[in-house]
Amino acid sequence: MPLPADLETPCLILHRDRLERNIKAMADRFREIGVPLRPHLKTAKSIDVARICAEHGADRWTVSTLREAEYFAAHGLTDILYAVSIIPSKLDRVSALNRKGVDVAVCLDTLETARALASATIDGPPLRVFLEIDVDRHRTGLRPDEARLIEIAQTVHDADRLQLFGVMAHGGESYSANSLAKIEAMAEQERSTTVAAADAIREAGIPRPIVSVGSTPTAQLGRSFDGVSEVRAGVYMFQDVFQANLGVTTLDDMAVSVLASVISHAPHLNRLILDAGGLALSKDRSCATQENDCGYGFLADEDGKVIPNLTMEGVSQEHGYVTTRDGQEIDFTRFPIGSRLQVLANHACMTAAAHDTYHVVDGQGVNLGEWRRINGWNTYNK
Amino acid sequence: MPLPADLETPCLILHRDRLERNIKAMADRFREIGVPLRPHLKTAKSIDVARICAEHGADRWTVSTLREAEYFAAHGLTDILYAVSIIPSKLDRVSALNRKGVDVAVCLDTLETARALASATIDGPPLRVFLEIDVDRHRTGLRPDEARLIEIAQTVHDADRLQLFGVMAHGGESYSANSLAKIEAMAEQERSTTVAAADAIREAGIPRPIVSVGSTPTAQLGRSFDGVSEVRAGVYMFQDVFQANLGVTTLDDMAVSVLASVISHAPHLNRLILDAGGLALSKDRSCATQENDCGYGFLADEDGKVIPNLTMEGVSQEHGYVTTRDGQEIDFTRFPIGSRLQVLANHACMTAAAHDTYHVVDGQGVNLGEWRRINGWNTYNK
Repeated sequence: MPLPADLETPCLILHRDRLERNIKAMADRFREIGVPLRPHLKTAKSIDVARICAEHGADRWTVSTLREAEYFAAHGLTDILYAVSIIPSKLDRVSALNRKGVDVAVCLDTLETARALASATIDGPPLRVFLEIDVDRHRTGLRPDEARLIEIAQTVHDADRLQLFGVMAHGGESYSANSLAKIEAMAEQERSTTVAAADAIREAGIPRPIVSVGSTPTAQLGRSFDGVSEVRAGVYMFQDVFQANLGVTTLDDMAVSVLASVISHAPHLNRLILDAGGLALSKDRSCATQENDCGYGFLADEDGKVIPNLTMEGVSQEHGYVTTRDGQEIDFTRFPIGSRLQVLANHACMTAAAHDTYHVVDGQGVNLGEWRRINGWNTYNK
Repeated sequence: MPLPADLETPCLILHRDRLERNIKAMADRFREIGVPLRPHLKTAKSIDVARICAEHGADRWTVSTLREAEYFAAHGLTDILYAVSIIPSKLDRVSALNRKGVDVAVCLDTLETARALASATIDGPPLRVFLEIDVDRHRTGLRPDEARLIEIAQTVHDADRLQLFGVMAHGGESYSANSLAKIEAMAEQERSTTVAAADAIREAGIPRPIVSVGSTPTAQLGRSFDGVSEVRAGVYMFQDVFQANLGVTTLDDMAVSVLASVISHAPHLNRLILDAGGLALSKDRSCATQENDCGYGFLADEDGKVIPNLTMEGVSQEHGYVTTRDGQEIDFTRFPIGSRLQVLANHACMTAAAHDTYHVVDGQGVNLGEWRRINGWNTYNK
């Protein structure tokens, strides 16, 4: 069914049935495995989406900014892991939430930060601390066999106002995998390395912390979660072209798209011009190294049917350039000026962040209204 | 001087003295050349910045979204060119402004759009129309020698409610130049091609439209503006690494930066981790094809002094990975946890759009307050 006619383009569409299907599939998987999910809200940044996760059993959360923590706490969520390394100057915002009973946990991976937190004034209950583990040299974190892991764990454990709560890892290198077998192997590496870190801490005579791991690919394809206490993932709610190219989802599962209008035809360049460019889509080119590179996105019609031979070959700030993948001439009569296409984005986290609002539709394209997103970093004031 | 201590990172810094210097330099140049500037507000998206342009003589404007047009009109600006191809469904928003006397002009480059506008109900004064000319196969537009240019010009000219006002071009391929001589040549190509289009229209017996051209590189380096009626440019107000690598500015002229905190050290990866990642910086990699590629940005200290050996080698959503350009080991004691760096972004338009607010500082780092940005696309309601 066509999408609501009165939407101003470009805008972000959220397909509610696909969203719920994706959320339910992951929730069901981990209910069966018997490990709780701690959904990562960095992709959705929306209380309405979090509520659907809660309806499917989620009761703990991950965020990527303190603004998200403040926003979700204002809407009643508790037990929130702020999964980006804390620094002392950000403690006040955490403490302000914890005094209200939100129970925000933080993460760190340097002795300098551990010492600073150990000597900081932290009121309210003891602050739960996760140590970040580097499982694949992707981002940051401590290797399980290095001496400073134990030194940091001991520093946190010994501090009156801190609780050594967990070790956590994000197997981000799974994003570089070129086969499902490779992702499975990375999931196992993520699991075993993080469990090893927890074991090393226990062997040093410190109470064993919980084990938190996750990324959408490793959560979807991991075979064993032995020793894992909880799994974090976020993109799975929406999915995107990158995940589809990895093979962990399909283009028909994508819950977000950017609705764009055809604003010009450039027959001499064999191009349709859309009003969604680098700002509305992001300039994410993660797919560049994937076999099924689609430039800046695949295209679907208003009914959601993918048009496999079209690709977004380039973007300027407010222009998107669509051409054919095989060089065939575009039939411009199929795409008159003012007709609309859905752009399936490479990377849902980046594309969604260009928009303040989701325009939510059901499976029949009926408008269900707008849901707000909480972008940015500054303190949230309701 | 260090920047204000109480800023929450990551955040967007606007150095007011540099901004004014950049605006003044371009205004002075075109006052001397004798061609009016029509500043493009797509980069700044701020009435406070537009006011500085006005103080230096600007009295006409370019925007890239109707939301910008509505916002700037609400703050008193008139004579605004919406420089992205219009489509009929967007006419209502244009007419609503023009009924209030804002005088928004539109652009198009297809016969289909020209005919649709010719038969549309347009109240208020006749709608000023620019025809977009393709000077370098960069984006869209009509070639000056093609028959449909005249057909479209005639259609617009003949329509009661339309005024064929101008031809316009954006020499965007100047962004791909690898020498100043190449940019100069592209400026001349932009000028001569657009003038040729205006001449072709006159030769067909239609009143000659005005000639509007521009991009920051061609505006800064063009030698002749003969036959040009006005020049559009926007990035020059802020400048960025891309423009510096082109050679049209220097890193010391950059008026915006992202202030970020060091949140972790990863000595085993020779990395500083900052709290500014892909969302705070954008994933723009325009510099990738330039000789002086800097990954996702160069780094400067709080005083604005560039640290030439550091580069942002990678980003995740909320993490930025800084390493040395020559492989030398980072002296981590120079960058303790919580210390702050300024990231000089590749592409000011993309980076600024990740933020709602400028934190404005003077040359001594004194906080001058916050200026709002007008991101997004939906209708602006004051």
